[in-house]
Amino acid sequence: MHRDLLAANDVLAGKNREIIEGMGAIALNLISAPGSGKTTLLEKTIECLADRVHIGVIEGDIETARDAERIRAKGVPAVQLTTGGACHLDASLVNKGLHALADKLNGGDLDLIFIENVGNLVCPATFYLGEHKRAVLVSVPEGPDKPAKYPRAFMGADLFLITKTDLLPYFDFLVDEARSEALKLNPELEIISLSSVNNDGFDQWITFLEGLLNLTPLAQTP
Amino acid sequence: MHRDLLAANDVLAGKNREIIEGMGAIALNLISAPGSGKTTLLEKTIECLADRVHIGVIEGDIETARDAERIRAKGVPAVQLTTGGACHLDASLVNKGLHALADKLNGGDLDLIFIENVGNLVCPATFYLGEHKRAVLVSVPEGPDKPAKYPRAFMGADLFLITKTDLLPYFDFLVDEARSEALKLNPELEIISLSSVNNDGFDQWITFLEGLLNLTPLAQTP
Repeated sequence: MHRDLLAANDVLAGKNREIIEGMGAIALNLISAPGSGKTTLLEKTIECLADRVHIGVIEGDIETARDAERIRAKGVPAVQLTTGGACHLDASLVNKGLHALADKLNGGDLDLIFIENVGNLVCPATFYLGEHKRAVLVSVPEGPDKPAKYPRAFMGADLFLITKTDLLPYFDFLVDEARSEALKLNPELEIISLSSVNNDGFDQWITFLEGLLNLTPLAQTP
Repeated sequence: MHRDLLAANDVLAGKNREIIEGMGAIALNLISAPGSGKTTLLEKTIECLADRVHIGVIEGDIETARDAERIRAKGVPAVQLTTGGACHLDASLVNKGLHALADKLNGGDLDLIFIENVGNLVCPATFYLGEHKRAVLVSVPEGPDKPAKYPRAFMGADLFLITKTDLLPYFDFLVDEARSEALKLNPELEIISLSSVNNDGFDQWITFLEGLLNLTPLAQTP
């Protein structure tokens, strides 16, 4: 039955992909534990890119609309999905989110859609939402053992973001250990370590997005 | 079907409770996101109490036996349960863990059993394991909005531990905000903020455990 559920999810995710591409957009699914800095990363990314790129955001949370409010404050259309208890987004919820996002655009196009999943390093890894790329985030305070302990999230990701690197002086977090553990699980994984506070490594993240969108890189980011 | 699954879980959890009490022990179920400091809290707690209290630990992880190895290094019996992908412990797995713990004791008794759940602030909240008390942990780097965003974990808990308070100077984390949000969800919740690094508030946690075990408090802890 679980397999049927995932198969039905994947069919609907394929339809989401068509909707996303019909908007002219590339979509990224962001997966992490609670408090890894997903929303802060998006706020900062919008500041860097919003004058060149049309961004839309779908926010997943169990309860509250706080994250969508934070994103809207940056002048970008954002839809809040609340799962009402469920521990992950699925393709059906994201389908509703995409239609709501389209309504906000009044026929306008998007270049880039971020789907911020529910804070959970486990269950979201199983559900394809129609995204083009999937990023998994681990923040420095969480510790470098997370890839080994939560392997599925890393096996299914294209990009591994090590966040809050401004906190490295206060933690026993060896970036190389986290990198090599993640690469053991998924040798194709692209890995960027960055801070949304002091901008360390943030240019690599922006370059990654520019590559995805076939943009000419700016001389200086952020 | 989900309801049947939970009902079957609760029946088995009742049996776990009998096994725990047959060992003479009180059990605590610790729930948090990945990297909130559950294992470090247990290491420190063992250092404070192990000369007065017989402690046993059941460690839940999706993969790896690292946490049980850390606990065993403190001289305390520990059993590692790996869920092989599942995002929470259930009563059936903990039943296996209790039998494995009993085997390690060779007929000896325990006073206190910690069950460290899989790092996940969502799904473990739904599964009763037979514990006497349930604690939910949020670390300062995760942010004070976690009670509002993950309400079920707080509604079902007896104790809310705000961990890593030594990091308060580096974060916009208002302890009072986290406290009041949690109390809105669960007015009976006991709340302790503490650090396993600089010992701030750690005496309150030890006093809580002493109360649970009807121990005479020591003059100075830790």
